[in-house]
Amino acid sequence: MKKISEEHFFNQQACVEATNLYVFDTRTRGSRAAPQKKKLRHGGKKMEIICLDLEGVLVPEIWIAFAEASGIPELKKTTRDEPDYDKLMNYRLDILAEHNLGLKEIQETIAKIDPLPGAKEFLDKLRSLTQVIIISDTFTQFASPLMKKLGWPTIMCNSLEVASDGKITGFKMRVENSKFTTVKALQSIGYETIASGDSFNDLGMIKASKAGFLFRTTEQIKKDYPEYPAFEDYDDLYNAIEKVINS
Amino acid sequence: MKKISEEHFFNQQACVEATNLYVFDTRTRGSRAAPQKKKLRHGGKKMEIICLDLEGVLVPEIWIAFAEASGIPELKKTTRDEPDYDKLMNYRLDILAEHNLGLKEIQETIAKIDPLPGAKEFLDKLRSLTQVIIISDTFTQFASPLMKKLGWPTIMCNSLEVASDGKITGFKMRVENSKFTTVKALQSIGYETIASGDSFNDLGMIKASKAGFLFRTTEQIKKDYPEYPAFEDYDDLYNAIEKVINS
Repeated sequence: MKKISEEHFFNQQACVEATNLYVFDTRTRGSRAAPQKKKLRHGGKKMEIICLDLEGVLVPEIWIAFAEASGIPELKKTTRDEPDYDKLMNYRLDILAEHNLGLKEIQETIAKIDPLPGAKEFLDKLRSLTQVIIISDTFTQFASPLMKKLGWPTIMCNSLEVASDGKITGFKMRVENSKFTTVKALQSIGYETIASGDSFNDLGMIKASKAGFLFRTTEQIKKDYPEYPAFEDYDDLYNAIEKVINS
Repeated sequence: MKKISEEHFFNQQACVEATNLYVFDTRTRGSRAAPQKKKLRHGGKKMEIICLDLEGVLVPEIWIAFAEASGIPELKKTTRDEPDYDKLMNYRLDILAEHNLGLKEIQETIAKIDPLPGAKEFLDKLRSLTQVIIISDTFTQFASPLMKKLGWPTIMCNSLEVASDGKITGFKMRVENSKFTTVKALQSIGYETIASGDSFNDLGMIKASKAGFLFRTTEQIKKDYPEYPAFEDYDDLYNAIEKVINS
């Protein structure tokens, strides 16, 4: 308990420090005293970072692909159907236990999954434009073969707890409300975030960002959040992001 | 001022939230009630992220390369010689202005620079092992051609203020004490950081991390910080990092 308290104090200190510095940093330093307007026109603005969801945006829904390969339709349920991620994961783990399926069987399926058509080209183009981080509620054990196919972009996700016999015994979430909390942490170190995703669990980072875009989402989410542009094609999403960066 | 205050409040809120949740997250959730020891052996531990310096570790010192190409030896001064980065940057910008050199001339030089021999192979291997972020005090306008040669790893750095005539009029630091502040922000969203660098300005992130390694540093820094293992070869650094991750 002592160790946790120390970490808690230390992190809180650093966060408050980062926040103060972030505010301090809203002016340009080391300037050659160019007038304010000129500064803003020529690089005085904050750096942007793109925060993208993974499943449904760059790769297929992993659990749906697994449900099809394993012939267990109950595993097709995603965050689109069940916004409570803890509830959804416990439901999934119960089904896997019932069918005696472990990490090995799931990874064999994931190895067969390819990124969505055009996803790698979109991501390559975006990574040459600015910094991109994939923020996903998937697990590092699932993501790795897909990240390899996407050219190893940076992904911030969670991790599974796997027993020695390969059974998935639990899951460790990196941080609560991870998409929102991760974009806020990026903002606290001087970034403006631009976020895009398809599901309920992406709305936190989309709402908290300088610009947010829905991508291949449901009719219901489009209807509930008309304020966020919704795209189906990578080119349209890329152009919208580029427009924000060049504005 | 109003806007800044709101941002300040909002960021502070999110940071404190992230910090509290980070502590909350130190236990594994959704567990199938496996005994604590088993949990720790099988994925119950926190995720690691590697934080690497750029210049001197993965690529040559950009300003030294530029000094050689431009024949201006005064520009060979780096953070190894001048720990005060603001002082160093203002010194560099003054010299560039004296010689009428702008971003174009600097970028023409950077396009000729290659990553250090073995750097890309080391980075590729590390990126297939876990998540890697390059944290550098360089500028996005300088880094981009080098990131392309390294396969577009994620880099968190700063930005230059460039006038319409191409002259560098100033520089915008992303956040104060950026290497330390960035690793603390990563820790606040559930990561344990492992850091490596060669210079004075890397010590903040090295000291704040779960594990820190000096790489191709000076005799003086080795002498002043004997507590941090110092490596010269990529294989030794990789093996040390892998050992921490598998521990």
